[in-house]
Amino acid sequence: MKIAGQVSLTDLPRVCPLLCRSTNPEYGETKTRVVEVRGVRFGEERPVVIGGPCAVESREQTLNVARAVRNAGADMLRGGAYKPRTSPHDFQGTGEDGLRILSEAREETGLPVVTEATDPRLVEKVAEFADMIQIGSRNMQNYPLLAEAGRVGKPVLLKRGMAASLVEWLGAAEYIAQQGNPDIVLCERGIKAFSNGEYSRFVLDLNVIPAVRAHTFLPVIVDPSHATGVSQMVEPASRAALEFGSQGLIIEVADPAMERPVCDAVQAITPETLASIARFAHAHAERAMEKAGIA
Amino acid sequence: MKIAGQVSLTDLPRVCPLLCRSTNPEYGETKTRVVEVRGVRFGEERPVVIGGPCAVESREQTLNVARAVRNAGADMLRGGAYKPRTSPHDFQGTGEDGLRILSEAREETGLPVVTEATDPRLVEKVAEFADMIQIGSRNMQNYPLLAEAGRVGKPVLLKRGMAASLVEWLGAAEYIAQQGNPDIVLCERGIKAFSNGEYSRFVLDLNVIPAVRAHTFLPVIVDPSHATGVSQMVEPASRAALEFGSQGLIIEVADPAMERPVCDAVQAITPETLASIARFAHAHAERAMEKAGIA
Amino acid sequence: MKIAGQVSLTDLPRVCPLLCRSTNPEYGETKTRVVEVRGVRFGEERPVVIGGPCAVESREQTLNVARAVRNAGADMLRGGAYKPRTSPHDFQGTGEDGLRILSEAREETGLPVVTEATDPRLVEKVAEFADMIQIGSRNMQNYPLLAEAGRVGKPVLLKRGMAASLVEWLGAAEYIAQQGNPDIVLCERGIKAFSNGEYSRFVLDLNVIPAVRAHTFLPVIVDPSHATGVSQMVEPASRAALEFGSQGLIIEVADPAMERPVCDAVQAITPETLASIARFAHAHAERAMEKAGIA
Amino acid sequence: MKIAGQVSLTDLPRVCPLLCRSTNPEYGETKTRVVEVRGVRFGEERPVVIGGPCAVESREQTLNVARAVRNAGADMLRGGAYKPRTSPHDFQGTGEDGLRILSEAREETGLPVVTEATDPRLVEKVAEFADMIQIGSRNMQNYPLLAEAGRVGKPVLLKRGMAASLVEWLGAAEYIAQQGNPDIVLCERGIKAFSNGEYSRFVLDLNVIPAVRAHTFLPVIVDPSHATGVSQMVEPASRAALEFGSQGLIIEVADPAMERPVCDAVQAITPETLASIARFAHAHAERAMEKAGIA
Repeated sequence: MKIAGQVSLTDLPRVCPLLCRSTNPEYGETKTRVVEVRGVRFGEERPVVIGGPCAVESREQTLNVARAVRNAGADMLRGGAYKPRTSPHDFQGTGEDGLRILSEAREETGLPVVTEATDPRLVEKVAEFADMIQIGSRNMQNYPLLAEAGRVGKPVLLKRGMAASLVEWLGAAEYIAQQGNPDIVLCERGIKAFSNGEYSRFVLDLNVIPAVRAHTFLPVIVDPSHATGVSQMVEPASRAALEFGSQGLIIEVADPAMERPVCDAVQAITPETLASIARFAHAHAERAMEKAGIA
Repeated sequence: MKIAGQVSLTDLPRVCPLLCRSTNPEYGETKTRVVEVRGVRFGEERPVVIGGPCAVESREQTLNVARAVRNAGADMLRGGAYKPRTSPHDFQGTGEDGLRILSEAREETGLPVVTEATDPRLVEKVAEFADMIQIGSRNMQNYPLLAEAGRVGKPVLLKRGMAASLVEWLGAAEYIAQQGNPDIVLCERGIKAFSNGEYSRFVLDLNVIPAVRAHTFLPVIVDPSHATGVSQMVEPASRAALEFGSQGLIIEVADPAMERPVCDAVQAITPETLASIARFAHAHAERAMEKAGIA
Repeated sequence: MKIAGQVSLTDLPRVCPLLCRSTNPEYGETKTRVVEVRGVRFGEERPVVIGGPCAVESREQTLNVARAVRNAGADMLRGGAYKPRTSPHDFQGTGEDGLRILSEAREETGLPVVTEATDPRLVEKVAEFADMIQIGSRNMQNYPLLAEAGRVGKPVLLKRGMAASLVEWLGAAEYIAQQGNPDIVLCERGIKAFSNGEYSRFVLDLNVIPAVRAHTFLPVIVDPSHATGVSQMVEPASRAALEFGSQGLIIEVADPAMERPVCDAVQAITPETLASIARFAHAHAERAMEKAGIA
Repeated sequence: MKIAGQVSLTDLPRVCPLLCRSTNPEYGETKTRVVEVRGVRFGEERPVVIGGPCAVESREQTLNVARAVRNAGADMLRGGAYKPRTSPHDFQGTGEDGLRILSEAREETGLPVVTEATDPRLVEKVAEFADMIQIGSRNMQNYPLLAEAGRVGKPVLLKRGMAASLVEWLGAAEYIAQQGNPDIVLCERGIKAFSNGEYSRFVLDLNVIPAVRAHTFLPVIVDPSHATGVSQMVEPASRAALEFGSQGLIIEVADPAMERPVCDAVQAITPETLASIARFAHAHAERAMEKAGIA
């Protein structure tokens, strides 16, 4: 009995000729394409640490968190203005107002901003304010959105779908690259498995990190906040991700001034923990560079 | 350790107040809302059988299959004009030409047409030609697309995401209903699990059918073609789905005149098999009605 | 990067030469080996319906259920004397006393008895009282137990592990066959997936049924009680299983006289529902035989 | 619709009162019980590194690897004498001969030995030669085997089943503890998920590590060899595991003198890589102790 629809890693040269190593020999077996976002460089030895609120809820909250993120030593600011939520009756984000607030936060802190686009008709608007466009897990296979993100000329952060195979993920990235934009950073954020909800929200799949790096030259980072859903796990998950080859982290940070953020508070960490993660990231890079220098 | 983001079926009254039974007592515990598509009625005792090609590849192929589908005793025609594919280098569908061909096939056969919309900017165009708008698995959480589908005034067929929980699926349907359109038919099409690819493409999850019917008044059907990915499994899967409470089937049918269709040939069945499935569906409905009459 | 430990269906001739079709051409592509248990025949057109309590809790309860099972038209009696439980502090079964009670129930009802063995040292004892030895899901890869079950000369019912691939399952059966005993009946009982616990206990995987029948000549049945964990789903799941090619059913039945059984009450059905399932099974077989007679 | 069989972490006091923190307040919220194996101590700051061949194939191979493991700075020797394999026609291990070889390897290297028991009737024999008894994944719910392992008086290494929930895993450990033996070390070794086989063998689930440590006082280690199935992933996975809170590692090491070991060669690492992992483990412990000293 033959089975339809089986695509495997051996099909990569056909599925994503623009992005896989085997059809782009100039990258060899290990070189990563450097993706630059306003001076922040993904894909070099130094991991990129991105922090920020789950959602941009207000000007004050966002500026508070942005300052804390900068002071913690992080490199970029994250925060959702358009929030894809399970129910239409849940808070859907502050939209364009949120984009303006993020822009102001960048002015004040100097941190480049990454934020999610969820609608192809709004990608230009998002690109007007953001330095990097995030495509979320639920939209990993929203191909018109990917194409718009590829057309608009800003680097793209492409999260893995909650049950996406590696081929499906790289195929999705190819939709962006096909528009002439190879400035793509991949992001593992946890997968669906039988254990979801018992002791963590998703399963952080770090095995995929070296596999990504073996099959494409794009940089890859990890979102330990969604992958665990447990604030106490975010720091160890961050260290683990870096040791497993992740080239950066994107982390939800709580507003120190707020009692209870509207969204996903349970997985947000304090600015102090973010600072500890950033220190680890930098020490980790130094050890790696030392080792490379010696070897 | 608390876990973020846990939503369960007890949250349904908040997640989808427009669609769940507990907040819509007029439907009681078992009544299904009838969704009518050009005279075809989903949600009554008689299951709706939809057949057609995976993709609209040409006028001739589509008309061939459409006639075969009608002659097999099916109720509606399916066929993709816009095809979401893993790679941008794969065949992406015939687009508006495909819509016109489907429209012509309806003229000739009298079968109402369901076809997929993948871009919110094209929903109106699709609605111009189609009788029912399909939202595919990859787009189950593409909320702007769902909202457009809800606004355009045609019934919507909402496929379950490949790893969507029941709450996520009903939450997605709520995005359509929120636009004033409760004419939604749900469609189970196989889920991701460890066994995918060993002996079938996905795992057909029939347990979800009575659960859907217990929690919402919307009709629910099954796609045995994608759920199995194996042509020999489509007929037994169809019968099983109906016995488990599915209120219809959507099935890929091969062009009898063609040697090898471009897409997903391995899971397409012959018109003869479709006819056998349709006969089973009608006999099944008669047995059910007899039983109900006696009881 | 090469991956260790990948075994696929193409390896079956090496993994289970005693049981797979390709190395046993006398069974052709569709013939099933008939496994006889005291006159009850698995693998013929007529499905075998097995009913009984989850656990043998007392003489009275077991005899009550056994009579109800026989009166419902079922073919065999099930019931656990040795119960593998998640916690050692849970009820572990009535052991040898339970075996004696089952034996008495057989005397009274004439129904052959299947019961689980969980320890290789107790297989002979179980075989002394039972007509068929069940190997449960948790023990599917308990190879010393499988070998003892193969040695003792009674037919074996081998449940699929909760996350077992088809190759692993057939490899497990081969351990029994290797001892000279090919009288094995396979049993699908639900698999682990991300959705477990939301609306059903496991995911009933019916796709595996035709795959089993394509790859081995052994009969295969379904346990809808464990696969769903929801009493209301047991009857539709039973019908679906038979339509998908299952050659029998093993079902938990509640004691009509008891308020609340000790174990798994939520998934047990009434004797009336069992009777309805048995009638469906027999009508289904008649339809199949008629159809075969015509064709 | 109620669902049978749901056990959650809130049931731990009932499922495993001997092992969970809430019923053993003397361990507080973070203290680990130290499990000592011939002077090697699991559960202290210094991680325990275990290395060795997949299977004991011959005296020469085992002694070769054992010396290399000791020279690499590892703490213990692993190696399978009884090998549970998917097919009975695969190499099943060298049995008692293998135990004697392991014993000799201990004499020569001074490394304590852990090896798997697969049959309750052989646990005493294994305990005669081994310093620690391993219960493998396939036998995690083989309760008679667990009970024997608990009775025999040697520390036990309990691997997680391939699809075991945390509650099921701790419930299995309770079967050992119930026999009066709380000297149990838990071992995460990868779980089944949709992605298995695409780029790694299983999914290494590190989220479970802090969850284990939050819910029980038992030490927990990681098997990066089986969890990835890819030799190049073993070192980064090992570092990641330690950063995520794993208290040790158990790793398959290739015989430097052999061209091709009989079993699982693709996931075995060289002694040089083991040495690098051991150095990381020790430096990691020093950093942790420094940090604790400062704080």
